[in-house]
Amino acid sequence: MESIEVGILGATGMVGQHFIRFLEGHPWFKLTWLGASDRSAGKAYKDATVWRLEGDMPPSVADLVVSESKTGSAPRLVFSAMDASVATEIEREFAEAGHVIVSNSRNHRMEPDVPLLVPEINPGHLSLVHAQQRNRGWKGMIVTNPNCSTIVLTLALAPLAKFGIERVIAATMQAVSGAGYPGVASMDILANVVPYIGGEEEKMQQETQKIMGGVADGRSLPLAARVSAHCHRVPSVDGHMVATSVEFKERIQLSEIQQAFGNYRGVPQERSLPSAPPRPVIYMSQQDRPQPRRDAARENGMSVFVGRVRECPVLDWKFVACGHNTIRGAAGAAVLNAELMLSEGFLD
Amino acid sequence: MESIEVGILGATGMVGQHFIRFLEGHPWFKLTWLGASDRSAGKAYKDATVWRLEGDMPPSVADLVVSESKTGSAPRLVFSAMDASVATEIEREFAEAGHVIVSNSRNHRMEPDVPLLVPEINPGHLSLVHAQQRNRGWKGMIVTNPNCSTIVLTLALAPLAKFGIERVIAATMQAVSGAGYPGVASMDILANVVPYIGGEEEKMQQETQKIMGGVADGRSLPLAARVSAHCHRVPSVDGHMVATSVEFKERIQLSEIQQAFGNYRGVPQERSLPSAPPRPVIYMSQQDRPQPRRDAARENGMSVFVGRVRECPVLDWKFVACGHNTIRGAAGAAVLNAELMLSEGFLD
Amino acid sequence: MESIEVGILGATGMVGQHFIRFLEGHPWFKLTWLGASDRSAGKAYKDATVWRLEGDMPPSVADLVVSESKTGSAPRLVFSAMDASVATEIEREFAEAGHVIVSNSRNHRMEPDVPLLVPEINPGHLSLVHAQQRNRGWKGMIVTNPNCSTIVLTLALAPLAKFGIERVIAATMQAVSGAGYPGVASMDILANVVPYIGGEEEKMQQETQKIMGGVADGRSLPLAARVSAHCHRVPSVDGHMVATSVEFKERIQLSEIQQAFGNYRGVPQERSLPSAPPRPVIYMSQQDRPQPRRDAARENGMSVFVGRVRECPVLDWKFVACGHNTIRGAAGAAVLNAELMLSEGFLD
Amino acid sequence: MESIEVGILGATGMVGQHFIRFLEGHPWFKLTWLGASDRSAGKAYKDATVWRLEGDMPPSVADLVVSESKTGSAPRLVFSAMDASVATEIEREFAEAGHVIVSNSRNHRMEPDVPLLVPEINPGHLSLVHAQQRNRGWKGMIVTNPNCSTIVLTLALAPLAKFGIERVIAATMQAVSGAGYPGVASMDILANVVPYIGGEEEKMQQETQKIMGGVADGRSLPLAARVSAHCHRVPSVDGHMVATSVEFKERIQLSEIQQAFGNYRGVPQERSLPSAPPRPVIYMSQQDRPQPRRDAARENGMSVFVGRVRECPVLDWKFVACGHNTIRGAAGAAVLNAELMLSEGFLD
Repeated sequence: MESIEVGILGATGMVGQHFIRFLEGHPWFKLTWLGASDRSAGKAYKDATVWRLEGDMPPSVADLVVSESKTGSAPRLVFSAMDASVATEIEREFAEAGHVIVSNSRNHRMEPDVPLLVPEINPGHLSLVHAQQRNRGWKGMIVTNPNCSTIVLTLALAPLAKFGIERVIAATMQAVSGAGYPGVASMDILANVVPYIGGEEEKMQQETQKIMGGVADGRSLPLAARVSAHCHRVPSVDGHMVATSVEFKERIQLSEIQQAFGNYRGVPQERSLPSAPPRPVIYMSQQDRPQPRRDAARENGMSVFVGRVRECPVLDWKFVACGHNTIRGAAGAAVLNAELMLSEGFLD
Repeated sequence: MESIEVGILGATGMVGQHFIRFLEGHPWFKLTWLGASDRSAGKAYKDATVWRLEGDMPPSVADLVVSESKTGSAPRLVFSAMDASVATEIEREFAEAGHVIVSNSRNHRMEPDVPLLVPEINPGHLSLVHAQQRNRGWKGMIVTNPNCSTIVLTLALAPLAKFGIERVIAATMQAVSGAGYPGVASMDILANVVPYIGGEEEKMQQETQKIMGGVADGRSLPLAARVSAHCHRVPSVDGHMVATSVEFKERIQLSEIQQAFGNYRGVPQERSLPSAPPRPVIYMSQQDRPQPRRDAARENGMSVFVGRVRECPVLDWKFVACGHNTIRGAAGAAVLNAELMLSEGFLD
Repeated sequence: MESIEVGILGATGMVGQHFIRFLEGHPWFKLTWLGASDRSAGKAYKDATVWRLEGDMPPSVADLVVSESKTGSAPRLVFSAMDASVATEIEREFAEAGHVIVSNSRNHRMEPDVPLLVPEINPGHLSLVHAQQRNRGWKGMIVTNPNCSTIVLTLALAPLAKFGIERVIAATMQAVSGAGYPGVASMDILANVVPYIGGEEEKMQQETQKIMGGVADGRSLPLAARVSAHCHRVPSVDGHMVATSVEFKERIQLSEIQQAFGNYRGVPQERSLPSAPPRPVIYMSQQDRPQPRRDAARENGMSVFVGRVRECPVLDWKFVACGHNTIRGAAGAAVLNAELMLSEGFLD
Repeated sequence: MESIEVGILGATGMVGQHFIRFLEGHPWFKLTWLGASDRSAGKAYKDATVWRLEGDMPPSVADLVVSESKTGSAPRLVFSAMDASVATEIEREFAEAGHVIVSNSRNHRMEPDVPLLVPEINPGHLSLVHAQQRNRGWKGMIVTNPNCSTIVLTLALAPLAKFGIERVIAATMQAVSGAGYPGVASMDILANVVPYIGGEEEKMQQETQKIMGGVADGRSLPLAARVSAHCHRVPSVDGHMVATSVEFKERIQLSEIQQAFGNYRGVPQERSLPSAPPRPVIYMSQQDRPQPRRDAARENGMSVFVGRVRECPVLDWKFVACGHNTIRGAAGAAVLNAELMLSEGFLD
């Protein structure tokens, strides 16, 4: 298979850097185009960017010249790592001009004809793209991935969906990398907890319902389950934790939950998509795991780890989930979306 | 009023040090007796102890000679800061010998004739002492205060009890000082979250029901409300956070909750007990407060701070509470218990 | 004594907030004027400011109306907490107009006719003010305090100055509060060390020489000692640590150093200035102290703590010093400067 | 080449776990023997050990049965990860019985006939083994690697040795993983700095002289340079920082230092030993690097990163160095030692 050229919108920001890191050595996608603000356009990437991730900037992008965020020179498949403040219009222009926009931005996620895709959970939502193109007269398309805390919650819930999820209460402990750069001030978070992340609780509640729901008549059909999120920032670097209580339609046993977690596989695993982890959900039996620093980065950061499954005196069961917020919760999520789309023929 | 002599069992440990710090300059109680293990007995306190709190050891205790944990020389009122592994028998011996044991240890908390006391919430539970003395043939008594995370939760719930609490889900983010010394290994908690604290969830669930329940026939009568706790250790130093969702019997408004928090006062406030904070519960209107590093130590560490009251899509309302775990959650709690007991005549 | 009205330039920033906190209840100075940018002018302080320190904003300033940073309405004595980017001109305008500017900004520190004052060390440098007024035709004056890490180093060195300091190597570990707000990004400092603080090493080297030097002919005369600084940011909240090696002209004994530290007193102590700590330098004998979290805030944050005095195989002696960077290293330093100035008649 | 069987003494401890992790998939060495205390002997490794590193225990060791720390069943080459409290006698017994002990323990490091080996710096010190065997009548041998902070310092100094090192002052900021498990209490280090690590300064000073010195007549001959260390623990997880000032015999230029760092290679690089990093010392030009969280783990944790080279007003030049304390500073150092020894025929 020949490799497919891809671009990144918002390439100089923190999320853009995560995309570059994640796409290094990708077997299908070759990064050839970097879009950023006018301020950066025309400069070599290494001159336009302060690299903030571990290690050095990958040499393959250092000398790529940054382009304006315009459609002319970009390849068909473009990942969007743009800040929400500018993403709405630019993503639309690209989609209208025929580009396939696989976006990590929140802007279009909740539109009923835009897939909010987690390939293991709702690959069928890709069909919304047909309605999207019809509704909007686009040749291209926009496909989105969820918020970084939502994806941890939904992947942990997905194996249990067959028991009929009625109600969910989720309290998050989120790492500072989720806020980008400079993001959270150290004066706010060192030896502290901040019980507020703007818009995060609403996103977790609504996105979870959309992802775990269905589609009908070219529109997404949110799951009727009630979801309540409490979101907190804590002084960890990478990896979001989600303490979760769930009520099911059915009465189920601990062993059924453990088996559901252990056996869970989806389309990305069946098709061995390059970024798909062998086990999207990994159940840990140790009583004090998962933990963000020790677990989130395992499996290339693409699995969600669950543990401490126990009865909940209020709802039915409770457990804790942990996932890597900048990989499975952002760049890796989008790349896996693109891999699914390619395997479904959406990039032909 | 003359000052009353008091002692501390377990004086060399971390909780013992918090008692010493909290009792410095107390208007009613004068610390004259320090009990510890045989290893320390006979030494000056300054030679028996590595002082681990901020600042220096108070000079008033530095030269006090540490006693064995035996009843002979101790004053009538003794605070117990003993480790749970040894507290059961020693506390009983002291109570049998006529001492008033005001204990922070967990050992006797759940016995039906032992008050688990939060002076603002259940001062009437002190009446259990009469049954306790009758049942056990003791001249003295044991009175306990709750676990450090329970007390934050119950003080935050207490103003709302009048609306009829049905169900509570609480997720904690607890500071490392709650585990004593050496307590949590830095390798476990730096830039990390540990989703497990041994026995903590059970304590929060059961103690909350006992504290907020009643007494009948010389026995405590737990509240029928269902309580579910998720407990986590996070890298903060002092101050436990509790993200809380509550369901009430009644349908209530936001303003009723805010007023309930703002107006809440109890017997300690009415009687102006020396360690009673003017407002036991303080409602903060800023969207990102309370926070452990910025709020827990205010009001001498004796108030619980609540904020972010908002509707819960699953139960009725949700909010976050924060309190100082080693003050209101331990030493300060016990001293306030003793002040209430003195004001009720239990020390006559 | 009647209280003297004082103002703060740069009142809404982090340093300004530290001034407000430090001046609460001051026996000599009454805060009546708050200057800030045009954006804030005309608003009540509570509406112009996000309060970022522990606890609530002092009620005494909440309703003060913020003024423009102009001379008209300000009292004679004005503390400057302005950002260096704007301080130069505004401070000069105020001084020219007759105000006594006691500044924490770095802008004028190294000018030869501006006192860089540490009241214990170089109270005589205040005499530079006469030359300053003559040189510049000012009725007012500018007096400065050192950088937050310099003040820790110089107070630790001052007791040893009598032995003839020849060479100093100092490696700092500085708290994030030294960088203001938002200051250091949490992504940069969590579980990390940043070996660079812009301009800090030069400041420590030059300011130390000026502070510990003399004055002659209306100009400061820097000490000839050679000083080398290595500056690092570490994940602590308050309190700068300085690991110091020193070479002396004389051969001295450990006991001489310990005594020099223990006996050190200055003019502020002799005159019992309100903010003067009883002991400006406190020698700790425990092998693992001082520490920023446990020691910096003691003595109202106005003392410098030293410990671990031991022979240095390269220079003569080495030790570690610790002080509170936002109190003794900023607001408290400036207030103590003003107290000295008042006691010397500079405010008559 | 056939793989060589190796064992680990002290296999259940933290350092032992690092050895296991580092030896996973090693091309020359196959781990077949795990020695530990009597308490663990006879159990499967997975039952004898709480795995504390990131990720899961490698499956290849999980079912290995742990042996007593006796010589009978162990392979010839044994890595020692034993605690210093027990290492002296056991290591000697193994060496006497013919084993090649490649030890990370400090116990034998300073003995004049024991190589304290850094393969890039002093491969010739291996010749001390002949004297060692003669002196002690051993068929086996003990070879050691330095303390974790010493190795960072010496690798950073080694490229500059040709300029004639006269004096060194080094201030460390050391990660908590250097203290093992449970190691540093979180109450001691969260948002704090501890200016003391028992024995560390002496080790850095003496070991540096031995490593950078020569051998003569079967004894090590320490370098005459004077070295002074200030050691501190800071709240980072992995990676020790060393702020270093150096005085040289020669007058040298910045560009000479940069080139010396950039061009530095040793025997391990010439022979392409499996664990040898291509560049043992990596010079970073960014003004705020290296940093432990962002750099220490690069290059498999086997390189030392240096930066901020600048003139020192007291000695000649100053810079900062950073290296991974549990890899290059412990397990990886020992494995590289064994690779050098194999390439020199010491394992024939």
